[in-house]
Amino acid sequence: MRLGKLSPHELERLVFPFQGAEREEVVFGPRLGRDCGVLRLSPLYLSCTCDPVTGTSFGAGSLAPHLVANDLIASGAEPVALVVSLLFPPEASVSLLEETMRELDEAAKAIGFAILGGHTEITDAVTRPVIHCTGIGIIAFEPLPDVTRVKPGDTIVMTKGAGIEGTAILALERAKELQGILTDEELKRAQTFLKRVSVLPEGRIALRCSPHCLHDATEGGILGAVFEVCSAQGLGFILEEGKVLLFPETEKIARYFGCDPLRLISSGTLLVFTPHPLPLLGALQDAGIPASVIGQVTENGRVLIRKDGTREEVTECPQDELWRLLEVSKP
Amino acid sequence: MRLGKLSPHELERLVFPFQGAEREEVVFGPRLGRDCGVLRLSPLYLSCTCDPVTGTSFGAGSLAPHLVANDLIASGAEPVALVVSLLFPPEASVSLLEETMRELDEAAKAIGFAILGGHTEITDAVTRPVIHCTGIGIIAFEPLPDVTRVKPGDTIVMTKGAGIEGTAILALERAKELQGILTDEELKRAQTFLKRVSVLPEGRIALRCSPHCLHDATEGGILGAVFEVCSAQGLGFILEEGKVLLFPETEKIARYFGCDPLRLISSGTLLVFTPHPLPLLGALQDAGIPASVIGQVTENGRVLIRKDGTREEVTECPQDELWRLLEVSKP
Repeated sequence: MRLGKLSPHELERLVFPFQGAEREEVVFGPRLGRDCGVLRLSPLYLSCTCDPVTGTSFGAGSLAPHLVANDLIASGAEPVALVVSLLFPPEASVSLLEETMRELDEAAKAIGFAILGGHTEITDAVTRPVIHCTGIGIIAFEPLPDVTRVKPGDTIVMTKGAGIEGTAILALERAKELQGILTDEELKRAQTFLKRVSVLPEGRIALRCSPHCLHDATEGGILGAVFEVCSAQGLGFILEEGKVLLFPETEKIARYFGCDPLRLISSGTLLVFTPHPLPLLGALQDAGIPASVIGQVTENGRVLIRKDGTREEVTECPQDELWRLLEVSKP
Repeated sequence: MRLGKLSPHELERLVFPFQGAEREEVVFGPRLGRDCGVLRLSPLYLSCTCDPVTGTSFGAGSLAPHLVANDLIASGAEPVALVVSLLFPPEASVSLLEETMRELDEAAKAIGFAILGGHTEITDAVTRPVIHCTGIGIIAFEPLPDVTRVKPGDTIVMTKGAGIEGTAILALERAKELQGILTDEELKRAQTFLKRVSVLPEGRIALRCSPHCLHDATEGGILGAVFEVCSAQGLGFILEEGKVLLFPETEKIARYFGCDPLRLISSGTLLVFTPHPLPLLGALQDAGIPASVIGQVTENGRVLIRKDGTREEVTECPQDELWRLLEVSKP
């Protein structure tokens, strides 16, 4: 099979039909465009999600809890607890394990996650460390934001900048090549972009503005995320490239590599689908978080309007640009 | 590092010091002899655990949900939901993924687990399929059973038979060698021992008898489990080999391989630490579940009384016999 996440079609066919026992506690089970399952444990809702991070290059232990927290806040949940499973290959050093635990602990504390337990094992089933975090969060309000509430006419708002995570990874992995392209200062700044990877602050603000759906843009970038959410509902969208926020470092790096920043992995960017964007934009501005209206949900047709005014039909869920550029498997 | 789970000493030093944020919801965090973390979400308690299963030989998809459910029921929790993460290597076939999802679904339905979501990825970070299940369960009574409630004088009760899981694995992996040792009928029966791997039925019964602690005996066998629970509390134990239940198939296989069934991986065996064993033994008997009093918790000293009356001091947590016999990493 092809490296990476399964395609939407494969998920629909191979994974989602299997949902185990029917339980009345389940409010939201597996579905395209949804990263968390939700249980009703009256009077609260419980949101659960998981993400494995494989690789060691850039503090994977620091990244993993944030990715899980992003999914939780996008589901409406305040992060509460983390179950951590570490699978390390035999050649891994004890100091790498120590470093990973310290990173996990620090990130968990910053987010507010208790580490509730887990599993630690040395196994030759893995070739590099696999850090697997399951996150549990609590939702104490209604109605819950969810992909099924996205409607034609919803405004699509994005925060911060496209391709944040991809910018950091390329700046770290391909630093040498980029030395002539970016100034030293720009390159250093781009290498710290993983610090922008949390969408907790803007997620908390967005939840106070009754959105239909929140989504953090990961693999496939902003375009992939919008495609996934809208097509999960059989809906279309119009997206305007000219409205997409872009850090200058991302713009330069993307231009150098000839890649589309709209298709570049983008943890750190929150997408909000909402019928009333104005209070949200005001609240984000008050908090000093850059935000922009980048498009709208439509009945049908998936259209990207480029800066020069040309209209592109987006016919399938875009592959992330990063895997093509790194020619390796996912970090 | 050495293949397998970390040693108790390594866990204490490398893993348990890192527990993330201090949250008032946390009742039980990471600790030796405890497989589930517990959150108080008044009026309920939520129990969470995870287990990765690596390998494909004998329906890993069927096994994984049961292992997680065993940990949950031992924590006092009724299984509710499963978050499933599948990491498959690129050479894995689509049909293996299909088969795994069907197995997971079937096991989840038998247990009562809803599959709430998860993650599916093809990655060269793994050399064989890694099936990672996080289980969530609900506890609706008090006081909670836990390793910290184990006291000197507690009776140790075991169910079914020692080395159930190891018996099945050896009967499957080393079938050829065993053909002369066991009758065809015995070998076939031993190969189906994974069907006995769930401790849900006896766990539910045991919880009605107010135990101090339940523990499912996995890696390290019954002796390893008793050692882990008692030493986590700085206590000792006396264990009588002659009282340990053993299926005839296990006895023959263990004798042939020269291995100690008390140290053989034993998912399917529930250990109950309780101050009042009689009602428990009666209730298990009524349900047709074999059970035996195999020892007692003491102030100090870790003593195994062999069948011939000799006393062995158990000075360190036993390594599982299976890894030595298979000379491979964990299945």
